[in-house]
Amino acid sequence: MSDPGNFSFTVGSRLDGRHGRSGVISTPHGEIATPAFIPVGTKATVKAVLPETMREIGAQALLANAYHLYLQPGSDIVDEAGGLSKFMNWPGPTFTDSGGFQVMSLGVGFKKVLAMEAVDVRSDDVIAKGKERLATVDDDGVTFRSHLDGSKHRFTPEVSMGIQHELGADIMFAFDELTTLLNTRGYQEKSLQRTHEWAQRCIDEHERLTAARTHRPYQALFAVIQGAQYEDLRRKACRELEAIRGSGGTGFDGYGIGGALEKHNLGTIVGWCCDELPEDKPRHMLGISEPEDIFTAVENGADTFDCVNPSRVARNAAIYVAEGRFNINTARFRRDFTPIDETCDCYTCANYTRAYLHHLFKAKEILAATLCTIHNERYTIRLVDRIRASIEGGYFDEHKAETLGRWKGRIATP
Amino acid sequence: MSDPGNFSFTVGSRLDGRHGRSGVISTPHGEIATPAFIPVGTKATVKAVLPETMREIGAQALLANAYHLYLQPGSDIVDEAGGLSKFMNWPGPTFTDSGGFQVMSLGVGFKKVLAMEAVDVRSDDVIAKGKERLATVDDDGVTFRSHLDGSKHRFTPEVSMGIQHELGADIMFAFDELTTLLNTRGYQEKSLQRTHEWAQRCIDEHERLTAARTHRPYQALFAVIQGAQYEDLRRKACRELEAIRGSGGTGFDGYGIGGALEKHNLGTIVGWCCDELPEDKPRHMLGISEPEDIFTAVENGADTFDCVNPSRVARNAAIYVAEGRFNINTARFRRDFTPIDETCDCYTCANYTRAYLHHLFKAKEILAATLCTIHNERYTIRLVDRIRASIEGGYFDEHKAETLGRWKGRIATP
Repeated sequence: MSDPGNFSFTVGSRLDGRHGRSGVISTPHGEIATPAFIPVGTKATVKAVLPETMREIGAQALLANAYHLYLQPGSDIVDEAGGLSKFMNWPGPTFTDSGGFQVMSLGVGFKKVLAMEAVDVRSDDVIAKGKERLATVDDDGVTFRSHLDGSKHRFTPEVSMGIQHELGADIMFAFDELTTLLNTRGYQEKSLQRTHEWAQRCIDEHERLTAARTHRPYQALFAVIQGAQYEDLRRKACRELEAIRGSGGTGFDGYGIGGALEKHNLGTIVGWCCDELPEDKPRHMLGISEPEDIFTAVENGADTFDCVNPSRVARNAAIYVAEGRFNINTARFRRDFTPIDETCDCYTCANYTRAYLHHLFKAKEILAATLCTIHNERYTIRLVDRIRASIEGGYFDEHKAETLGRWKGRIATP
Repeated sequence: MSDPGNFSFTVGSRLDGRHGRSGVISTPHGEIATPAFIPVGTKATVKAVLPETMREIGAQALLANAYHLYLQPGSDIVDEAGGLSKFMNWPGPTFTDSGGFQVMSLGVGFKKVLAMEAVDVRSDDVIAKGKERLATVDDDGVTFRSHLDGSKHRFTPEVSMGIQHELGADIMFAFDELTTLLNTRGYQEKSLQRTHEWAQRCIDEHERLTAARTHRPYQALFAVIQGAQYEDLRRKACRELEAIRGSGGTGFDGYGIGGALEKHNLGTIVGWCCDELPEDKPRHMLGISEPEDIFTAVENGADTFDCVNPSRVARNAAIYVAEGRFNINTARFRRDFTPIDETCDCYTCANYTRAYLHHLFKAKEILAATLCTIHNERYTIRLVDRIRASIEGGYFDEHKAETLGRWKGRIATP
């Protein structure tokens, strides 16, 4: 059996009276100093950017999506290639999600963010207007249709584990049911029980696959905590997931905080979870990248987080700077021969002007996406690197106040 | 006045009994060892590739298009940025074409290659089916509509010189009339006279702008030789262009061999021109990149050549190898975990498998274009680097026979 000792987490400095801390996650492909932002490379590539460039801008690990790689090229092909890291030429640590979020958001038919805004509605059957239900959940798993060709597929906890073992990322996530804030309290309870049962099946299958695949490095498995906005459900989920063991004694190596929550209660929910979770296991927060959210999550105990946003908005010409976000497509940048941000240390800011980036977007040149993604990913990585330094240096609160003070505008007019 | 002494050409080794030679072009932005392939960065970017990467794969200079940069972002903006090289973060030598090819091919309404295939027709008014005539030529210049927004514009020799001085490339081309093989002999004669008159106007305007723009490095100006498939016209054009001087004594710094010719007579036409052209001036062949054409052009005296093909076909998944070209999109590459070409020294071949590149194309990922462009440009640059070495080493003919012997298939089945 692969050696679970190849995965570990060590806590470094702690924030006074709060769950926030710095630390180091060790994986077979290297270490991750936490808190850390994990850029997303959905289909085994950070869109428009070479892996060496991601390394140069300080990315410590990358996260890919099991659902996408299962459909294309197929997790068996990634396995034959020697695993995700080798396939995509990224020698560092990798994460994969379980595929649950993608297959279930197909089912719900709308994006998480919409659910996050519609808090006064409660229904278990809401579907976005004009959307067909493409996925159905039952106690055993999820049946869904591919967004690529409409073909029918089924994910169960065992299937998700099989795919993620083939993908070979250092950190995997258990297959969980995604709920939204639109679901009733009754449904949340039922769903949480289902996620709990699936977590047990994931551990069992993970144990079996780990024993069978001794030719591959150990892969860590994180449980995913659901429970929406309910304190009792979140706390219960944490305690129960922590107690799960496989027949060989395997427990979860870390925890993902997932599911429906809103910006205003993000910190509270992360806090509830971290009250309950063991101190010595890493905690991943799924899908955040805005500075306020990152400070809130870190302060309340999240160690790592991922988000497609920095690269997605970059491809739409939206640029992050200390004061907020602005769109480089705007005509006022035509003759602006200054860098995006004089204080940024990224390759793009060192070598290109706003006028050039503006030109690339207008001319629909691929390099526009490349250069702006490099900047936005560097911006986010550096933001978190500085948060880590502020925890270790004992000046987190001052640093947070100063950074968010500058960020206040959000829509910047540089 | 900027110092024309910043531009020079030195001949190195020569091919016995033929015009082919090696040499060095010195420009204010560095040297170019010839024969050299000059990759095209149409809109001030080699599509999908960072300039540092182009340097790493051995690109010595890049060529951009005056027509495209005039429309977007505007040559005045490139001028304000400090010139093309600075604008696009490419510290090496640059070329710009005159814009003539683009504005006149709008007028003809079909591509050069189509004209090259229709040699039995002769007419001065042929327009491709379904195409509107977007440009009209008169003795003073060309009036045309932008392909971007339909707006009306006019290029004259003076306008082209003004644009190219604003773009600031080390090597510029005189504004010439593009004819096709469909044009009558009578039209070719008339057109050649027009190109001759425009060449004189270009030299005069170039002299004036060079004197006025002393804050910029000297820019070399190449005349363009037309004359289609007619030996007497090609030879006459060479002699007459060589004799042209501005009122201050400026002559052309080099020559571009342009216009209508076919694959089978490429060598013959280049040979006629090089019989007539001065030995001590560099000669650029416009728009070739296939191995046979490159060997033929070099053997007959061409020093540099450019082509969009290596990058254009790369974006469509067509890959060059020693044996020919193949399409990485084909299903047989799904599980092919070998590099594109074991013998290639490029970044893509060193780090990625055919299976990964296949996946990137299927998944419509931008990195597909980046990685395949790197390979194809490296392939072409290396092909020409080896030809240069074979001239200097005295084994050109053996090298040609061996290289084209392997290339014979053209459509490879690796």
